[in-house]
Amino acid sequence: MKKLLLPILLVFLAFPLFAQQKDSVLIRRVFNEILARGKSYEWLRQLTTQVGPRLSGSPGAQKAVDWGKKTMEAEGFDRVFLQEVMVPHWVRGDKERAWIRHGKDKIDVPVAALGGSVGTPAEGITAGVIEVKNFQELRALGREKVAGKIVFFNRPMDPTKLNTFEAYAGAVDQRGGGATEASKLGAVGAIVRSMNPSLDDFPHTGSMRYGPGVPLIPAAAISTKGAERLSALLKQNPALQFYFKQSCETLDDVLSYNVVGEIKGSEKPNEIILVGGHLDSWDLAQGAHDDGAGCVQSIEVLRTLKVLGIRPRHTLRAVLFMNEENGTRGGIKYADLAKQNNETHVYAIESDNGGFTPRGFGIVGNDAQVAALQRFSPLLAPYGLHEIGRGSGGADIGPLAPLGTVLVGFKPDSQRYFDYHHAANDRFEAISERELKLGAASMAALVILLDGLDK
Amino acid sequence: MKKLLLPILLVFLAFPLFAQQKDSVLIRRVFNEILARGKSYEWLRQLTTQVGPRLSGSPGAQKAVDWGKKTMEAEGFDRVFLQEVMVPHWVRGDKERAWIRHGKDKIDVPVAALGGSVGTPAEGITAGVIEVKNFQELRALGREKVAGKIVFFNRPMDPTKLNTFEAYAGAVDQRGGGATEASKLGAVGAIVRSMNPSLDDFPHTGSMRYGPGVPLIPAAAISTKGAERLSALLKQNPALQFYFKQSCETLDDVLSYNVVGEIKGSEKPNEIILVGGHLDSWDLAQGAHDDGAGCVQSIEVLRTLKVLGIRPRHTLRAVLFMNEENGTRGGIKYADLAKQNNETHVYAIESDNGGFTPRGFGIVGNDAQVAALQRFSPLLAPYGLHEIGRGSGGADIGPLAPLGTVLVGFKPDSQRYFDYHHAANDRFEAISERELKLGAASMAALVILLDGLDK
Repeated sequence: MKKLLLPILLVFLAFPLFAQQKDSVLIRRVFNEILARGKSYEWLRQLTTQVGPRLSGSPGAQKAVDWGKKTMEAEGFDRVFLQEVMVPHWVRGDKERAWIRHGKDKIDVPVAALGGSVGTPAEGITAGVIEVKNFQELRALGREKVAGKIVFFNRPMDPTKLNTFEAYAGAVDQRGGGATEASKLGAVGAIVRSMNPSLDDFPHTGSMRYGPGVPLIPAAAISTKGAERLSALLKQNPALQFYFKQSCETLDDVLSYNVVGEIKGSEKPNEIILVGGHLDSWDLAQGAHDDGAGCVQSIEVLRTLKVLGIRPRHTLRAVLFMNEENGTRGGIKYADLAKQNNETHVYAIESDNGGFTPRGFGIVGNDAQVAALQRFSPLLAPYGLHEIGRGSGGADIGPLAPLGTVLVGFKPDSQRYFDYHHAANDRFEAISERELKLGAASMAALVILLDGLDK
Repeated sequence: MKKLLLPILLVFLAFPLFAQQKDSVLIRRVFNEILARGKSYEWLRQLTTQVGPRLSGSPGAQKAVDWGKKTMEAEGFDRVFLQEVMVPHWVRGDKERAWIRHGKDKIDVPVAALGGSVGTPAEGITAGVIEVKNFQELRALGREKVAGKIVFFNRPMDPTKLNTFEAYAGAVDQRGGGATEASKLGAVGAIVRSMNPSLDDFPHTGSMRYGPGVPLIPAAAISTKGAERLSALLKQNPALQFYFKQSCETLDDVLSYNVVGEIKGSEKPNEIILVGGHLDSWDLAQGAHDDGAGCVQSIEVLRTLKVLGIRPRHTLRAVLFMNEENGTRGGIKYADLAKQNNETHVYAIESDNGGFTPRGFGIVGNDAQVAALQRFSPLLAPYGLHEIGRGSGGADIGPLAPLGTVLVGFKPDSQRYFDYHHAANDRFEAISERELKLGAASMAALVILLDGLDK
């Protein structure tokens, strides 16, 4: 007996090590496949340059749905299907115009209507400008100084924040709520410094909303260089006049779709691991980093496991969500359907922070769930994935949290993201093929590790 | 007594923690200064767009020396001086021409002479092509199949290497020694696939050398797309002819300079901590990543400490080395002078891996020296510096190793580096301001920590 016990004991003791080695080999195979033969970059080329901009409700969004379905079907996943979802339909209309009237000079500045804004009257708006850095400063000015004016929100993203998403979070209230706060004091328009840490000529759009009961005044983003210009001229001439004109409007909701591809689990077909990104983009951009990258990386995860013959124990889904940018209707609808259909989503991974070099994963879950993922660190660190801890999951997968799903946000390096975010330079050329592929491989590696867990 | 002992004991126990907190605050100040008010990006604009290409021995290199001296003098460092060094003087001559003659078609392909190569005869060279992946394959073909031919070295960088410097190391023998190996078998020229993991139209130059006694045959890099084209056509038509023409030559050595800026140490003025990069670049490029970035980051380290009033205990030097690309004469001369002058260099940090987002530091030293730096990890990890361990220092600081200096290579993310390396697209626009500044701040943080050590 004793002679038998020792080998058995050794086998049991060795098992976690053996499992780790097996995972390590699988992860290496996944990286090799994606880096040497991956398809994500070519898919991104199609989605950004052949489909192009794809704001919810637009013909581009419908083309993107068709592209996503066709692309996943061509890979022979077990099932590819659409989920109907009604989405907002905001249209920009004609290209915006804006200028500063400074004495005899008329200085054009690049602006773009914020998503959800109303247009100006057809002849545009001309008014004096009040520059503020925040809402507190605005309120302190009071109605007397603000009424009839255009409020210019000019607080830059804080350059000292290491993670640019923190800098964004610290500035984006101006874009989301600036028009409302200005309108409360009788302003006739809002001009918001673009959420861009760099100085350039691209206005960065993004969603805004009107608070209840306030007059709907038009709101536009101005490029960071335009903002600097306007601010400098205001110091010289506080009485200068600003003109802008935009013809955007919100139309009736439109039927659109989430696109879902699926590989059936071999052991736990009723437990789902989801990888996803969002298929819609802003209208100004090809939406390469935001979020073509997340879409093609998600499809690539399923393709890679399939082509390597790695049959997952859990059912694996790639989800291309519609309408993250101005409504999150796709994410909400996906979770609604999951609940209706009694689906169990054990993990959901979203890639919506750009196609940049991988840094790690941010987890939304309880302490034990976070710790479970952190135990993967030794297997992930060799691939540059050092930052595994609490974080944010993603806007589209967020609605799954109440169903008990552990949310995981893929975390690429954040430094260049806001140079492109919601602007016309978020193009295919802004993506590094290597960095995009490393992101897809990182997600695939995590899926393999999560698939080995029993929750 | 007892009452006194406890507080004293606590003070002693708390000291390392207190020192850590002090360092942590200093590092945060350094990052804030550089991210909000750093000068490295503007300096890089000057060096790349106003000075431009600066191959050793060229007028551009002399302009760069003047720029470096003037820039450091303007910052008011304690001392700025030049070190004379004789450097090789290779010139490219006229822009190269090359084409594939395939039946009636003449297909132009982008090539660039390798640094150190001889030219072709004035009328160029036309010959058949033998494609090989490595020297073994070449030797197996033998003189009979190679003599009179152009050897085409077409082994790509291995895309599955996570660190692209490893992929480079695994392919660059073709560039360095390809012409020699081909010449030994009677070839008339060598065409080498560019050391570039991406497919594009830029030929990537770089140094090559001739082995002793072999006939000097001309060698050129071909763009990766050109290489793919040539390889595809060779499969169709192994008898196709290739033409190329280049007029490069090596002239007499020229007097040039390392540029050194210094802040005197308050406690250990005779012990030096060096930060550096190399001032020369290839002639095809503005040399933004290679290595304008390292130069401006090094100057920025000294500027930042000075402007924040952080007086270092050790003497701190920023060194802009001349001639890293084709001779390393500046680095060798610097170490020679250090030895002659009995200077003690305790640490030397080099930035010559591009101006990309920081990942960590690679150390050349004994186990205890490596461990000493690894103990800084908790202070550096919040800044994305997770990879602190054995590595390579840098070509310019390498000659200091025999003098007992601990070498540290700043390690930025490697994924995009070889897209630009030694090619015409290594321009100012290829640099992210944020990533460049984070690199400078990372180096400054390490300098502060090293300055606190007693070796």
